[in-house]
Amino acid sequence: MKISIVAGGAGFIGSNLCARLLQDGRKVVVIDSLMRGSVGYLNFKDNESRITVIQADLACRSEAERAFDRTASLGNIHEVWHLAANSDIPAGIDNADVDIKNTFLTTAEILRCMKTYDIKKLHFASSSAIYGNLGNQPLHEDIGPLVPISNYGAMKLGSEALICAAAESYLEGPCIFRFPNVVGIPATHGVILDFVRKLKINMNYLHVLGDGTQRKAYLHVTDLISAMLFVSSKDTSSSIRIINVGPMDDGVHVSWIADKVIKRISPKAKIIFGTEDRGWIGDVPKFYYSTERIQALGWRPRLGSDMAVLKAINEIAVQEGF
Amino acid sequence: MKISIVAGGAGFIGSNLCARLLQDGRKVVVIDSLMRGSVGYLNFKDNESRITVIQADLACRSEAERAFDRTASLGNIHEVWHLAANSDIPAGIDNADVDIKNTFLTTAEILRCMKTYDIKKLHFASSSAIYGNLGNQPLHEDIGPLVPISNYGAMKLGSEALICAAAESYLEGPCIFRFPNVVGIPATHGVILDFVRKLKINMNYLHVLGDGTQRKAYLHVTDLISAMLFVSSKDTSSSIRIINVGPMDDGVHVSWIADKVIKRISPKAKIIFGTEDRGWIGDVPKFYYSTERIQALGWRPRLGSDMAVLKAINEIAVQEGF
Repeated sequence: MKISIVAGGAGFIGSNLCARLLQDGRKVVVIDSLMRGSVGYLNFKDNESRITVIQADLACRSEAERAFDRTASLGNIHEVWHLAANSDIPAGIDNADVDIKNTFLTTAEILRCMKTYDIKKLHFASSSAIYGNLGNQPLHEDIGPLVPISNYGAMKLGSEALICAAAESYLEGPCIFRFPNVVGIPATHGVILDFVRKLKINMNYLHVLGDGTQRKAYLHVTDLISAMLFVSSKDTSSSIRIINVGPMDDGVHVSWIADKVIKRISPKAKIIFGTEDRGWIGDVPKFYYSTERIQALGWRPRLGSDMAVLKAINEIAVQEGF
Repeated sequence: MKISIVAGGAGFIGSNLCARLLQDGRKVVVIDSLMRGSVGYLNFKDNESRITVIQADLACRSEAERAFDRTASLGNIHEVWHLAANSDIPAGIDNADVDIKNTFLTTAEILRCMKTYDIKKLHFASSSAIYGNLGNQPLHEDIGPLVPISNYGAMKLGSEALICAAAESYLEGPCIFRFPNVVGIPATHGVILDFVRKLKINMNYLHVLGDGTQRKAYLHVTDLISAMLFVSSKDTSSSIRIINVGPMDDGVHVSWIADKVIKRISPKAKIIFGTEDRGWIGDVPKFYYSTERIQALGWRPRLGSDMAVLKAINEIAVQEGF
């Protein structure tokens, strides 16, 4: 059985992907720095024989080489799912090194190892953050100019660019998935977890970054995984596929999320908004995400932004002990 | 007098820029690794008091810091012109490290130093290579998708992305110039120099990479410098300016250049073409470069592609001893 490598497989989205790949009968090798990810998220009792976890920082050449060497000793490597990245966008804005290293150099080193081991199939977790703040324009895959406003978005775009160049020589038809905001468990970051944890500390007040008018599209992680597997299973061509993944609606407001979180956790809490139209520098206040391309392929999400958020609020509340 | 830093100022385009900045009475600090550049290109006898050359590899953090420290000790730093990059595109295709380091990490480290020293003005030498091979579409600044086919183009795009993110916080209205193929002296690389040097070795034959049908737009370096100074002198806003720089025509064919080079160097030489429609992996066979934006600002090149190439052939022939 050929091996699927999941880079960043012990993180929020990666661990959900691993669960599905194992369910589908595949053999999985997780390579993860375990900086934010956790082996605890990979609790697959029935499939233990088909999953291996290698702790390695893929931004570091020697560690990446060691991890691929070890994987190659376990069998033939069929494909790489690359989800290894910084997930704390504000941290990367304060210090560009965070995204240069964890979001970009991970890609560079993974590509180098794929070339060495002649692995041709790559699925990459890119982001809607590559578009930047284009206002009211619907963000379809062919829009320009691409003017990311966070180092996270910049280094996802830099990663896409390297992958495109690699597709000219040694990769075959890589899939570049541009993720929206994704919610679900195991939650390690994001607006819902932030709100829940703030209420954990003080049940009376919920301070919201920004004025609450930011509106974003949210996808539940189960829908995201189904989209990736759907696209990757479609007849592959040798050309690059760039695909926005998201719900079919325009999203929900942060104020609405705050309201639903307090209803679930502490209904009498008072919500206190900031004055800015964005939560932090590099936060895109609103965007219209076009998912026509993936819809044309025949995929539909099961949950819209509102239902995805409600489901995730409940899951995260349970995760945090409520 | 405030200082203009020219990163990569000892290279082909950088040395031409320095000459113009000195002519305009400015104080210039060149920071260059001198890997391909040469202090010999910076022979400005009359302006010696206004130019300083610091040898430093800007991709290396400690060297970049040292170079900016030393520059700051010489006076207030007004602006940075960033032209430090790998200029050997095929080398970067064989080994991505070349462009990751010399084209991308130079940008990352320059930005870091600009943040440290609170330098707000950046002019960046990007490239038409960020567009990739979009066939017959006119390449205007807002086109998408951006699918570079060389690591050089990828890392220019990655650099643009980091600059866009930096413009959200500490930069003010950076200029991103997307260069076409630029010709002139001191030639360090490029198709004309390749042809002349091949003929130097064997005057009877000129082997051309590709079938000669590649067609590209060429700008003479004197026009390029005038375009950059023109745009940077325009009233600056705080938003990012992305500007294609190029001639107003669709370019000339490689076969035409080969013909003109042998006419100048060795009229009896036989031209032998390859069979591919491109010179190497990552070579874009033809593109239509839109320069409407810079024309709308009021700038026009003095020379079209044909005249630029003819002038450069003569200059390079003289440089190479013909």
